[in-house]
Amino acid sequence: MAKKSSTSDPDLRTRLRLPSGPVDWDALDTRATPGYPGKGKKDAGKHTAALAGELADLQERLYAAGRADPEGAPKVLVLLQGMDTSGKGGVIRHAIGLVDPQGVQLTAFKKPTEEELTHDFLWRIRKALPDPGMMGIFDRSQYEDVLTVRVNQLVEEKVWKARYDTINAFEAELAEQGTTIIKCFLHVSYEEQGERLAERLDNPEKHWKYNPGDVDERLLWADYREAYADALRTCDADHAPWYVIPSDRKWYRNWAVAQLLLEHLRALQLGWPAADFDPEVERQRLAET
Amino acid sequence: MAKKSSTSDPDLRTRLRLPSGPVDWDALDTRATPGYPGKGKKDAGKHTAALAGELADLQERLYAAGRADPEGAPKVLVLLQGMDTSGKGGVIRHAIGLVDPQGVQLTAFKKPTEEELTHDFLWRIRKALPDPGMMGIFDRSQYEDVLTVRVNQLVEEKVWKARYDTINAFEAELAEQGTTIIKCFLHVSYEEQGERLAERLDNPEKHWKYNPGDVDERLLWADYREAYADALRTCDADHAPWYVIPSDRKWYRNWAVAQLLLEHLRALQLGWPAADFDPEVERQRLAET
Repeated sequence: MAKKSSTSDPDLRTRLRLPSGPVDWDALDTRATPGYPGKGKKDAGKHTAALAGELADLQERLYAAGRADPEGAPKVLVLLQGMDTSGKGGVIRHAIGLVDPQGVQLTAFKKPTEEELTHDFLWRIRKALPDPGMMGIFDRSQYEDVLTVRVNQLVEEKVWKARYDTINAFEAELAEQGTTIIKCFLHVSYEEQGERLAERLDNPEKHWKYNPGDVDERLLWADYREAYADALRTCDADHAPWYVIPSDRKWYRNWAVAQLLLEHLRALQLGWPAADFDPEVERQRLAET
Repeated sequence: MAKKSSTSDPDLRTRLRLPSGPVDWDALDTRATPGYPGKGKKDAGKHTAALAGELADLQERLYAAGRADPEGAPKVLVLLQGMDTSGKGGVIRHAIGLVDPQGVQLTAFKKPTEEELTHDFLWRIRKALPDPGMMGIFDRSQYEDVLTVRVNQLVEEKVWKARYDTINAFEAELAEQGTTIIKCFLHVSYEEQGERLAERLDNPEKHWKYNPGDVDERLLWADYREAYADALRTCDADHAPWYVIPSDRKWYRNWAVAQLLLEHLRALQLGWPAADFDPEVERQRLAET
């Protein structure tokens, strides 16, 4: 039996799923805390930690499945997107950090290298896909190629426009091959981003996180909104859903991603692999040593 | 200022360092708990968790150094070796799991692939070395090529014998290039291994961790002892020290590796990178957005 966490199931898979219809940013509250079982920031550490036991148990079952069936075991892919300061790193530290590092394959997609640029945009993505039994974490992803690439006009419109179909076909293929896809858009407000950037400037211990290019990107906020709206709307499917995570409150954001991951792992209904040896024979062999 | 953990420094770098002279296994107590600041198993969770704050702070400084200086920043390499069931996985879960996954590059070296076998034994090792600012974790390592390869006679004696010098030259090169090397031998007793294997057989949830080959390897215990003694003795240097971690008590083993890592990170005396921009200019730019 999987250990149950102490909280009832808030079903974030329903609550945070991208609403149908055109994306209405004003209707998506960046400070909301849907499904949160506690009171607020003060008890968030406790509520996030409360997920750790069951998360660890289910992640170990996933890993065990990969060891028992290196070809056919399920795979999980958590994809993180969001504007600068939205907290992709914080989610990895505080939510993904709850599970065994041995079961995690983390990839941060930065500005493409020369080599990567000579290939199709999905080339580097495919190379980073999780192995059977593993949990892949994408810090940025294939969506950069319809977001920053579009906003900064790095390719012609017809090129990025064709990519939505390519991404949809790619994700359908992944799902078909047994990958649970969890796409998280970390949604911060313009005001909150401004405050977080200011904080990085004010604290010398955070200077290394600041890049003058962050302000250049911030000036393109409206263009990014439009690009995100298209990407989320066009590439949302039941087998590859987009979740909009209210992220102005860091404690909610971290709890919510951990909870979402937990709900998806539960849905896999993983048992433990059967032995491919005879335990009685092995006990005997061991006893003789 | 780095946050200080609440415990005084037990200096495991001295206490657990491989003693000089020929390796005397009988003198290395697998149940000892040198330097442990608490009472025992009951408070081990607390004492290990107490290291997390300072570990996270120092690891972030290391990571920041890598971002600020992608060529020259220090690197850390934690190498884990030990017999089956000695707890390499447990150390990764409980000690390495304390730090931000974004700063960790973990590699588990399994039976070499066909491609790996066509290259020199260090080929796959070099590919897995940590990038500047990163913490590399090796679950098994180059030492397998003088341990299992020697014991199972996979190559001629003159081949594995030549590898000690090769490994020493390799590790000297790594240290020279700014890698802090921490080699941990997880030392379990023959009796403890027997009990842990039996536990895996008795618990269906642990069957996936059991492999009939584990008993075959156990039958070669004396040969492994000899091979480990040679590897530890021949490849111990101040720039690439071997630590012998008493590992019959899992709680001590996990705490000790976390503490050792902390001591090595402290020794790097890492500050925060200086800004490569003018904060005042940036504050102004940000204020105008």
